[in-house]
Amino acid sequence: MFEQLGLIGCGLMGGSFALALKKAGLVKRVVGYSKSPTTTARALQMGVIDVEAPSALLAAAGADIVLLAVPVGATEATLKSIKHLVTPEMLIMDVGSTKTDVVQAARDALGSRICSFVPAHPNTGKEVAGVAHADEHLYRGAKVILTPTERTLTSHLHKAEALWKALGCDVRIMSPETHDAAFAAISHLPHMLAFAMMQSVMRQDQADAFLALAGPGFRDFTRIAASEPKMWRDILLANKTEVLAQTQHFKQAMQAFEQVLLTDDAQALEDMITLASAARTQCRFNPPTTASAA
Amino acid sequence: MFEQLGLIGCGLMGGSFALALKKAGLVKRVVGYSKSPTTTARALQMGVIDVEAPSALLAAAGADIVLLAVPVGATEATLKSIKHLVTPEMLIMDVGSTKTDVVQAARDALGSRICSFVPAHPNTGKEVAGVAHADEHLYRGAKVILTPTERTLTSHLHKAEALWKALGCDVRIMSPETHDAAFAAISHLPHMLAFAMMQSVMRQDQADAFLALAGPGFRDFTRIAASEPKMWRDILLANKTEVLAQTQHFKQAMQAFEQVLLTDDAQALEDMITLASAARTQCRFNPPTTASAA
Repeated sequence: MFEQLGLIGCGLMGGSFALALKKAGLVKRVVGYSKSPTTTARALQMGVIDVEAPSALLAAAGADIVLLAVPVGATEATLKSIKHLVTPEMLIMDVGSTKTDVVQAARDALGSRICSFVPAHPNTGKEVAGVAHADEHLYRGAKVILTPTERTLTSHLHKAEALWKALGCDVRIMSPETHDAAFAAISHLPHMLAFAMMQSVMRQDQADAFLALAGPGFRDFTRIAASEPKMWRDILLANKTEVLAQTQHFKQAMQAFEQVLLTDDAQALEDMITLASAARTQCRFNPPTTASAA
Repeated sequence: MFEQLGLIGCGLMGGSFALALKKAGLVKRVVGYSKSPTTTARALQMGVIDVEAPSALLAAAGADIVLLAVPVGATEATLKSIKHLVTPEMLIMDVGSTKTDVVQAARDALGSRICSFVPAHPNTGKEVAGVAHADEHLYRGAKVILTPTERTLTSHLHKAEALWKALGCDVRIMSPETHDAAFAAISHLPHMLAFAMMQSVMRQDQADAFLALAGPGFRDFTRIAASEPKMWRDILLANKTEVLAQTQHFKQAMQAFEQVLLTDDAQALEDMITLASAARTQCRFNPPTTASAA
């Protein structure tokens, strides 16, 4: 049980975290700050936060838990702005989709006070942003990856782990580098491909006629292409080395498909699809895949 | 209102069509044939068909409407096998995902009796196959593309249009070539990319560790990778010229993303994602996109 959550960034991720903590009875008060006054006002009105703070520093003041839910590119500046009020008792977490850069930003911004920081990545979200979409159930069943720094206090790591588990999450602990390599493969590259898919269609003269025929397969394949541009710009750039490495793997896989089409090699094509289809069928997701329309 | 549906292929697509027609009160009897006796038996047990036929020919005998719901590669042989019982009054349709090859197969198989044939592609399905998943609501809200041949009777085209509309479908009429170009862009290429995405991850040593972290974004992006291998082998090969042309467009779009990452061009990357995201947000699907987890 925490006394006071200092919420820095009251959008979808931050707002949903505050709601989930309140719903679980894990926090008494939420003091919130957002760069946009409209967001903070809306968060207050929705009961996401109890008190508006005029700055990130004042949102952190007196909190025993602080959540940074800002674009990853703003991590270092935000941590610097609260540094002077960070205490060893305070648990600080973020929700960023990349971790190597966040850990480096925390080292640069916090110095020895990094002992309070438990970098966190809850692998959930929506393709719509903003506090209006905040949802107390957003984190339920989500995979949450914690990537402690070399100086993070073990007691804070355990506290963070217990907290996310109490919200119904599946918690994994790994290094920032392992996290970033894995997410380049299963999240960042897929987003880049979904953006590229939209661009690929848009560049053609018949784009509107094509898109008018799109069905549920295209709908789901491109859902993540509707994601927030600034957030994904930052993620792709922050993790570009791993993303570009995954791009090479993907291009090889794609070239193999082109090759069997060019040579009309029906058996090889069937074998490749069979392996892909079996691998996808064996994937276990939380929440589970629904057998929706293709 | 039809007297008798001759259903050739009692799997997901055929079975759902029979159920939808019955539900809408548009058919009195369904006589069904499947290559697999287990499927036919199950279809009978589920009430999808009323009578089992021992051959495609006998399923078509006496029917005023015939639906071919077989892999596109089997279209020509199936049409040949029923040719002798095709009458000008009979409406024959298929549900294949490619149309140029289906029309050619119909020309070769039916000769002048092609006047009865209205090639149809209902853009719906599930990533699970088989009559067990047949669903009377599968076609509701689906886009159905009719690609009449040069000899298809207008009266049959109108009858087909009215029928699909009665099932709640959004019907479009176009040439087989236009259909195949469009579906290469918004269905066939996305399937190939989803298969390639799975292959790309599977080929890496850490595949299992990566896939264990996959969240809702990867789940939806790769949902169509679980599709039926033989069906998609046939579709990709049948439409390979258009699919390979779309692959070129996609590779250009992907290369543009790689380039801005390599050069750290944050503004260009943001602009490209913004356009992709806006285009995706403007897409209208039926049923509409739900704001599910990302």
